[in-house]
Amino acid sequence: MTLTPGTPGTPGTPGAIMSAEIAEQPAALERLLTRGAPAIAAVAAEIRARRPRFVLLTARGTSDNAALYAKYLLEIRLGLPCGLTSMSTTTAYGAEPDLTDVLVITVSQSGGSPDLVASARAARAAGAVTLAVTNNAESPLAAACEYHIDILAGPEKALPATKTYTSSLLALYLFVAALGGEDGTEAAAGLPALADEVLARQNEVRELAGRYRFAERMVLTSRGYGYPTAKEAALKLMETSYIPALSYSGADLLHGPLAMVDNVSPVIAIVTDGKGGAALQPVLDRLLDRGADLVVIGPRRQVDAASGGFVLPVDGLPEELQPVLEILPLQLLAHEVTVARGQDPDAPRSLAKVTETH
Amino acid sequence: MTLTPGTPGTPGTPGAIMSAEIAEQPAALERLLTRGAPAIAAVAAEIRARRPRFVLLTARGTSDNAALYAKYLLEIRLGLPCGLTSMSTTTAYGAEPDLTDVLVITVSQSGGSPDLVASARAARAAGAVTLAVTNNAESPLAAACEYHIDILAGPEKALPATKTYTSSLLALYLFVAALGGEDGTEAAAGLPALADEVLARQNEVRELAGRYRFAERMVLTSRGYGYPTAKEAALKLMETSYIPALSYSGADLLHGPLAMVDNVSPVIAIVTDGKGGAALQPVLDRLLDRGADLVVIGPRRQVDAASGGFVLPVDGLPEELQPVLEILPLQLLAHEVTVARGQDPDAPRSLAKVTETH
Repeated sequence: MTLTPGTPGTPGTPGAIMSAEIAEQPAALERLLTRGAPAIAAVAAEIRARRPRFVLLTARGTSDNAALYAKYLLEIRLGLPCGLTSMSTTTAYGAEPDLTDVLVITVSQSGGSPDLVASARAARAAGAVTLAVTNNAESPLAAACEYHIDILAGPEKALPATKTYTSSLLALYLFVAALGGEDGTEAAAGLPALADEVLARQNEVRELAGRYRFAERMVLTSRGYGYPTAKEAALKLMETSYIPALSYSGADLLHGPLAMVDNVSPVIAIVTDGKGGAALQPVLDRLLDRGADLVVIGPRRQVDAASGGFVLPVDGLPEELQPVLEILPLQLLAHEVTVARGQDPDAPRSLAKVTETH
Repeated sequence: MTLTPGTPGTPGTPGAIMSAEIAEQPAALERLLTRGAPAIAAVAAEIRARRPRFVLLTARGTSDNAALYAKYLLEIRLGLPCGLTSMSTTTAYGAEPDLTDVLVITVSQSGGSPDLVASARAARAAGAVTLAVTNNAESPLAAACEYHIDILAGPEKALPATKTYTSSLLALYLFVAALGGEDGTEAAAGLPALADEVLARQNEVRELAGRYRFAERMVLTSRGYGYPTAKEAALKLMETSYIPALSYSGADLLHGPLAMVDNVSPVIAIVTDGKGGAALQPVLDRLLDRGADLVVIGPRRQVDAASGGFVLPVDGLPEELQPVLEILPLQLLAHEVTVARGQDPDAPRSLAKVTETH
């Protein structure tokens, strides 16, 4: 796997670190598929033998969006009821849930946040099967959990997480497939090349970025597997450009915030090529009806019907793996919009890499 | 229970319908405590006998915030692991989870959204114990579920939901207490009078509203039991005034979006008088340190340390019941800010009372 030439920024220019890490993603995905997958399958086989009946996912920030992706996979592919943890229930209120038969997955690139470690320890003490998904096998979180999956993304230096997000998604995909007794590597084999292809189209994203240079707000929407992408894209845009970016599932958007859209707020819709995208269609129609500025990341047909967009090459990739690709143009967009606004994506005003919440 | 004189708007003035329904809340809470509680206790006793091990909550919009409140209650008070449903997993993807031992609670004021009805039916077919919490005992959702709780809020005509939110909170509180074998009515007995007291202070809220007249964005934050209040207040502000209002748990705020705050975005913090508020303190300190414009809804001490606020009279009310009060000044705020901006809270541009998502 060769990195896309020209994508990484020149050292010293604004966003050079974030740019370089965005460009590393095809190689990171390839590494996970070849070197990481066997260990993931082994962990999944052991957990499969424990027959968990429920899954709780714990994470914050970007990792929380990866956890939400895993929730869709677990519910749809394995029929396992899932919940995202409200961490303060244990860390602030000392809740003592009965976690027999429960698999608790904690996702964290650093594996270092004290509250995540405390929460994982409490889950283990309460009888849960505990799994850490991190980018650091030596981290306190990896040590606190019974099982660990290393996402092998390599050190992440940029404050806005990019490669650890896509690597977390793929690691969780491979894990869920293996938990269901399947090998996910074949379905995912095309990902690194497709990611390379997407990242080579930075010029298209730069052109899209122009329309948001003076935006005072943005709305991101999707449905199904693409919804975590909408949330992660909103977070990325906020962390880097400070544009208030709101994300809603398509159905929730119709429940109120649509009042805010009209001509006031541009909308970016993530349309997966599959059932989630089909379920979003009425929302897209309604947005276009109302004259919204709608940019679509997705299939050619929906992009052509919208105000603009980025056609995602999926080439037979199953819908459930498309989120690994969908976020790439949006990471580039966050970078481009931020640079266009005269800010530096590598120097967000107040982001710390390991958040010391307790 | 008498309504606070002067609070309801004059018919025909902007926001008169929303205002009238905000003012009905003390009476609605009182009605639920006296007329509604026995039926809730009876439903809870039957479900208790079924010994659910896991709870899934399904809802959209304002009801989703009520569901999140119930999630905190169920996890903290009863130690029951909970999840919020991603509805599209069943409605779009046809997921077939094993819901043995699972209690599925669907919250909806109208009880009429087709996707909620479909989702509840699917849950029941998958073996779940199903409970609908609605404001309409004759609704399709009430019919689709095995059990039903009527929140008895009376017909809600305003598009932005207010009284159905607080009535849902109290109904869910009484239900969870009874599910744990306790009678919640005594702890909640003071609520109607406290609600009356809060609503009588509309002038204070009007003064607070002045600072947001030209705001281009707002951030709401809380932790623990107050977090659903932050989400619901953000939704209410967006539905009525169209100000992009972002809500974060205090810990998530430190994970990125803090970059957006500084002097750019005013922050409203909901500080419960209890463990959640205590866990939020470091976030409040950091916001003040950074010179953020911080308004606190909560105890006198935190209001005095902030840029402004609204002191919430709790008078020994347990932390877990404070959310029923916390949202009241924020409903008034959404109303006041909207009117100050020359808009009509009763005529949001695109809100439909029953959202027909499928």
